[in-house]
Amino acid sequence: MDQKRFTYDIVAEDPKTHARAGVLHTPHGDVPTPIFMPVGTKASVKGIPTETVGALGAKIVLANTYHLAMRPGADLVAEMGGLHSFMNWHGPILTDSGGFQVFSHGDAVKLTDEGVRFIATDYDGSHVFWTPEDNMDIAQKLGADIVMQLDQCPGYPAERPFVERAVELSSMWADRCYRAHTRPDQALFGIVQGGMHLDLRLRSLRHLEESGDYPGYGIGGYSVGEDHETMFETLAPLVSEHMPRSKPRYLMGVGNPTTLVRAVSHGVDMFDCVLPTRTGRMGTAFSSEGRLNFRNARFAHDAGPIDEHCTCPVCTGGYSRALIRHLVTQKEMLGGILLSEHNIYFLLDLMRRAREAIIEGRYADFVDSWMGSAGAADY
Amino acid sequence: MDQKRFTYDIVAEDPKTHARAGVLHTPHGDVPTPIFMPVGTKASVKGIPTETVGALGAKIVLANTYHLAMRPGADLVAEMGGLHSFMNWHGPILTDSGGFQVFSHGDAVKLTDEGVRFIATDYDGSHVFWTPEDNMDIAQKLGADIVMQLDQCPGYPAERPFVERAVELSSMWADRCYRAHTRPDQALFGIVQGGMHLDLRLRSLRHLEESGDYPGYGIGGYSVGEDHETMFETLAPLVSEHMPRSKPRYLMGVGNPTTLVRAVSHGVDMFDCVLPTRTGRMGTAFSSEGRLNFRNARFAHDAGPIDEHCTCPVCTGGYSRALIRHLVTQKEMLGGILLSEHNIYFLLDLMRRAREAIIEGRYADFVDSWMGSAGAADY
Repeated sequence: MDQKRFTYDIVAEDPKTHARAGVLHTPHGDVPTPIFMPVGTKASVKGIPTETVGALGAKIVLANTYHLAMRPGADLVAEMGGLHSFMNWHGPILTDSGGFQVFSHGDAVKLTDEGVRFIATDYDGSHVFWTPEDNMDIAQKLGADIVMQLDQCPGYPAERPFVERAVELSSMWADRCYRAHTRPDQALFGIVQGGMHLDLRLRSLRHLEESGDYPGYGIGGYSVGEDHETMFETLAPLVSEHMPRSKPRYLMGVGNPTTLVRAVSHGVDMFDCVLPTRTGRMGTAFSSEGRLNFRNARFAHDAGPIDEHCTCPVCTGGYSRALIRHLVTQKEMLGGILLSEHNIYFLLDLMRRAREAIIEGRYADFVDSWMGSAGAADY
Repeated sequence: MDQKRFTYDIVAEDPKTHARAGVLHTPHGDVPTPIFMPVGTKASVKGIPTETVGALGAKIVLANTYHLAMRPGADLVAEMGGLHSFMNWHGPILTDSGGFQVFSHGDAVKLTDEGVRFIATDYDGSHVFWTPEDNMDIAQKLGADIVMQLDQCPGYPAERPFVERAVELSSMWADRCYRAHTRPDQALFGIVQGGMHLDLRLRSLRHLEESGDYPGYGIGGYSVGEDHETMFETLAPLVSEHMPRSKPRYLMGVGNPTTLVRAVSHGVDMFDCVLPTRTGRMGTAFSSEGRLNFRNARFAHDAGPIDEHCTCPVCTGGYSRALIRHLVTQKEMLGGILLSEHNIYFLLDLMRRAREAIIEGRYADFVDSWMGSAGAADY
């Protein structure tokens, strides 16, 4: 890791919460934090050209190592000049390890000392065997700015011994990823696991801190079925009291607006989730009034924008709720596309405003105001 | 019809062909001809936000009276300020009568003296009875700049007596539409039918010329299964020798690039077709090399644009053939969207270049050059 190319600066710390505003410097540009990262799993944010993703204000996007390894393959992406060139996004990119996707293959997943064996039922049914070294090889060929270690992410609920073994495996795999990772223009993040057990979370974190000098940490294994209070019971102390101040903290797979606002108050810096695009394609919008389902007939005659307080290109661009509802109910692609754009902007803008509030030392008020608003509805 | 708001000026006539370049003046702006009109059947060009449709260079778009009458309904569109406001396209709009869609309901379609009865199997299965007067009422509520008469469009092959009756019915319906149409800011086009029989085509045309002062004429009933030579055998003399010089001529439902180039040489001014978006969603591109099917493995490692001679935002914007192929084969929406954008631009640009050639008096050379190129491949 070339520390000159990947550094994290804290710009401001909120006086009343643990929130901080920062800047991640990457080879493909700077990323202000806190930040939401739109997800382009298979090298595309579903339905949205990359120039539009940029116009919405995205500063960094995700893609998925597992899916790209399956199709079109890491060698092909490398041959095309790497992921930035291949997916036509020239800003920073972060790739998931794909561990979450691998372990979602159910009973077909077998762990050995060496790695993980599974059947790619979502592709051609081929038998795949992945080691942490394979995973790093693929990640380095893809060439994202930030890559994640291979880990095992237990679901919820899970028996403590199972979570404990997942922490052990993830720690061992972290070490192997760390040794295998050599690409100097790419940052490798370790991932803290441990389910809803603070002591296991701390054991996982300690291992990463003691065994390497990771430029940042992922926090995995949340938003896997637990309720929000259960999540924050361990997440809050983990981040605010135990994670090193100088390193960026990335809460993986979380996109509920209220969870973002709360997690930032504990010191989380980065988020990703398919929620804005997936719910958008389903006909649902984030809004300052809470969740809006455009299958609802109440929007049929509504000439207003999706959210009158929103400054996104869709809300300011003349698209009415009546049109969005018509497109959604008629299964016209454009309905889901416009809602996806709006939803992505909504989270980007929420984090932009959160950052402003942190810099101005009023993040506690920002949280209070958000929690008291209709927008705090669960998604 | 307010002739001040809807006029057609001929700018240039090619000396060696029957091609002409013109300008259609409409209440929502001028339309240079010859022109291709992208189709937004249900109030959206599939997958493409209207600002992008505009950025591609579209000057006028289509929508469909039948589909909009079914959902969301003409009254709702009117309540939302009309179709321009509802679909968020503030340039000129043309609406199909929906006759073609009505008659596609197969055995359930019954003609009476008054109108047409059918079962809307593509919506809620309701029984619908439409008269030409109903059709005009809907078209006037939608409020497009140009609307088409209700007509009956026979398929191909068809028995001559059937085509003859369709001409009679279409003529009668033209008269009723003409009487029922009163909106002064909207132009009503009559439609010439008559299948592949020149005498029936001329009978249809004569009736329209003698019974009203239509500001333009549609030419329906082509591209319904006949081959190109069969089509041009009657289309060429109909347009070049018999249709009035001063009125715009709109060849309905045709989008094959080569057919556009040839039809312009006979004096056609306007075209619409779902071909660019439909083939785009299927993974196919128009190109200067002919038809490109992105399911083909030969594109997997191709870092070049869809068409190296194309100046569209996709081809000049950094999207590679390898990415497009990946997106298409992985069923990522973005593949079909980018190909749709490219294909629409391709036809818009083809007509833009045709217009230039006409103005410079070299359209015959333009046709020769096109017909000798790989781009002339059939689609």
